[in-house]
Amino acid sequence: MATSPIWASRSKTRGLVLDLIRSARTISRIELAEATGLTGATISEVVRELMGNGLVVEAGRGMSTGGKPRTLVRLNPVARYSVGVQLERNTCVIVVVDLAGRPVTRTAVPGVASMPPQRALPLVAAQVDALLATAGVDRDKVLGVGLVSYGPQDRRAGVQLTPQPTDEWLDHPIAQRLAGHLGLPVLLDNDAAAAAIGEYWMGAVDSRSTYGCIYMASGIGGGVVVAGEIYRGSSSNSVEIGHISIAADGDECTCGNVGCLENYAGPSAVVQQARALPGLAGRLALDPADADLLTGFAQIAAAANSGDPDARSLIERSARYLGSAAVTMAGLFDVDAIVLAGPSFAVAGPIYRAVVQREVDRRTFARRAHGVRVALSVNGSDAAAIGGAVLVLQSELILGRG
Amino acid sequence: MATSPIWASRSKTRGLVLDLIRSARTISRIELAEATGLTGATISEVVRELMGNGLVVEAGRGMSTGGKPRTLVRLNPVARYSVGVQLERNTCVIVVVDLAGRPVTRTAVPGVASMPPQRALPLVAAQVDALLATAGVDRDKVLGVGLVSYGPQDRRAGVQLTPQPTDEWLDHPIAQRLAGHLGLPVLLDNDAAAAAIGEYWMGAVDSRSTYGCIYMASGIGGGVVVAGEIYRGSSSNSVEIGHISIAADGDECTCGNVGCLENYAGPSAVVQQARALPGLAGRLALDPADADLLTGFAQIAAAANSGDPDARSLIERSARYLGSAAVTMAGLFDVDAIVLAGPSFAVAGPIYRAVVQREVDRRTFARRAHGVRVALSVNGSDAAAIGGAVLVLQSELILGRG
Repeated sequence: MATSPIWASRSKTRGLVLDLIRSARTISRIELAEATGLTGATISEVVRELMGNGLVVEAGRGMSTGGKPRTLVRLNPVARYSVGVQLERNTCVIVVVDLAGRPVTRTAVPGVASMPPQRALPLVAAQVDALLATAGVDRDKVLGVGLVSYGPQDRRAGVQLTPQPTDEWLDHPIAQRLAGHLGLPVLLDNDAAAAAIGEYWMGAVDSRSTYGCIYMASGIGGGVVVAGEIYRGSSSNSVEIGHISIAADGDECTCGNVGCLENYAGPSAVVQQARALPGLAGRLALDPADADLLTGFAQIAAAANSGDPDARSLIERSARYLGSAAVTMAGLFDVDAIVLAGPSFAVAGPIYRAVVQREVDRRTFARRAHGVRVALSVNGSDAAAIGGAVLVLQSELILGRG
Repeated sequence: MATSPIWASRSKTRGLVLDLIRSARTISRIELAEATGLTGATISEVVRELMGNGLVVEAGRGMSTGGKPRTLVRLNPVARYSVGVQLERNTCVIVVVDLAGRPVTRTAVPGVASMPPQRALPLVAAQVDALLATAGVDRDKVLGVGLVSYGPQDRRAGVQLTPQPTDEWLDHPIAQRLAGHLGLPVLLDNDAAAAAIGEYWMGAVDSRSTYGCIYMASGIGGGVVVAGEIYRGSSSNSVEIGHISIAADGDECTCGNVGCLENYAGPSAVVQQARALPGLAGRLALDPADADLLTGFAQIAAAANSGDPDARSLIERSARYLGSAAVTMAGLFDVDAIVLAGPSFAVAGPIYRAVVQREVDRRTFARRAHGVRVALSVNGSDAAAIGGAVLVLQSELILGRG
């Protein structure tokens, strides 16, 4: 399908201007002209179009540097919405966000992701419908759904390339099927990459910077963003940092690699190490057959926060391994910042942040060139689902595909 | 300094067309129009301009798919030249390449890189002058010098951020000083990144692909190329794969990290391991105080090729560690191919290639999505110096800066 070059080019300009308005929060037409290098006439026309679409509204007057006060514009957050759906091993998080990327409503559905897709996707669709109805969001204003998950994917086809959580998920056209159930466009992407994009949309990182995200839920993933766009590589299966080897002679992982980070630093490893310490396991009453891994991990993290020396030692060890992977990420991608995101940083995030920052400061190869800031995600535990929704906003409004 | 947008845009089109001619070897105007989506009139104008500059010449007639035969064009390799200078720990390699990236002449100057820059750079400049004179290359046709080295750099300032090989190199304006000695533009870049770009220019990899390079001389470096351009990250200090940790609890490296790949897989580690085996050290008459590390390593590599079991075992161990790092590169950058380049693959390259390919096939996370081809560099031992020269061609002619 051919796209008119004039439309594409106008759409790209519109996306650029909208992104500047988003990141500035409020901005005048004159400042937009200065930032883009476009003429005042072009900016006025684009802003008029964005206001006509309802995406942008006037926001009072700002102080001018001489001359008359400038009229400011800002995003109109209620003009559009999008939905983020995260399929995790234990649960499915669904969020609705407004045009500013702020969650309007959310729900978590346990169990969905362990069903085969034929059962799971109609349930997810029903939950999305219910969420939109309850929040009173006009369906015509919903741009689409960002469905995010872990494991290898064929992103263009909207297909998972992994037999997880059940064999039926392998090669199942999950994006297409969910789109069919909902009557909304659905894009499939990696959860950690989505979490990374969510940070940029919320203004937590400079949109011109190169930064990474380490995402930890039950597993560990990663994403890198370069100048506002996800680093994709050949097939969008990039930055799989949970499955890099941190021990060349380590044990084999289910993924085929040996000594994978996830098996040293992830919640499963930490819970296993805690169960091997009778004192700690007893103090926390850790259920040896506990199916809910993340609850056990959260208990250990809380104990570490409260000063339990065994728990603290386990969390710090996990953080040092993550720090080692963060040093690899910094040395390979040359990032300005690394964001720690996901539910497994919810409790002991500050311990992780401090240890990873220390490792990066000491060990990163190009530390003479610049530092690497380590930060906790502004989107908290729902970072991946929010990021999935933000990917839809970015794809439809900024990158000139809408 | 403002650039006219019209000139920039014409220059970008010219670069695109020139790059297509380069990669196709011979191509007709009609095929150029099809490949670029530009009109026949625009292509004719651009090709006329490229022929006027002498960069492109006619190359006979090709078969048409019906209608009259098409006139083909190709690069004119003798139209321009560039110089690549690689500063390695033990030696300095200088090459002159033609517009097709083919070496016209080369020299290797031992010892230069262990001198302070005030002594080394005038010597390098004299060698470049002598090389150009001997080869009879017209200086007006020399676009510039690509100076490549290892360690952290401030690429824009043309400054090394490392006190290696002597303290005086830290913060010394080496690009500017060499440019002053030679009266030619000098760009500073990373040796491994340069080697990666050299592969693309020689047509050894598809210019639209994402691929990595692992470069091994006395140390180990890396580069990744995305759609024909080096992945830069924040400060061009990216893909430092020799200093990623493959052993989270390993020994501290001089770089500040622990368990660095270079200390397990690099020539220095292999020579040290060989010296600890009295049988092998005796058979190869390894000099325990041998200053020329690479000679000792080449002896071990040659013995491995000849079937010496101890030597073979050491080289294969080194290759497995490199394979582990290659799996990390593939998992993080999602590459289609990994090229092994540099003098330390000159002797036992096929052993390394086979072992790294095996590890990547078995262990890469997204192997269901696509395979990763492991290949030896087409530019051999001089890959970094040739790549430095190619970076100048690319920067001046393709990326629209010329």
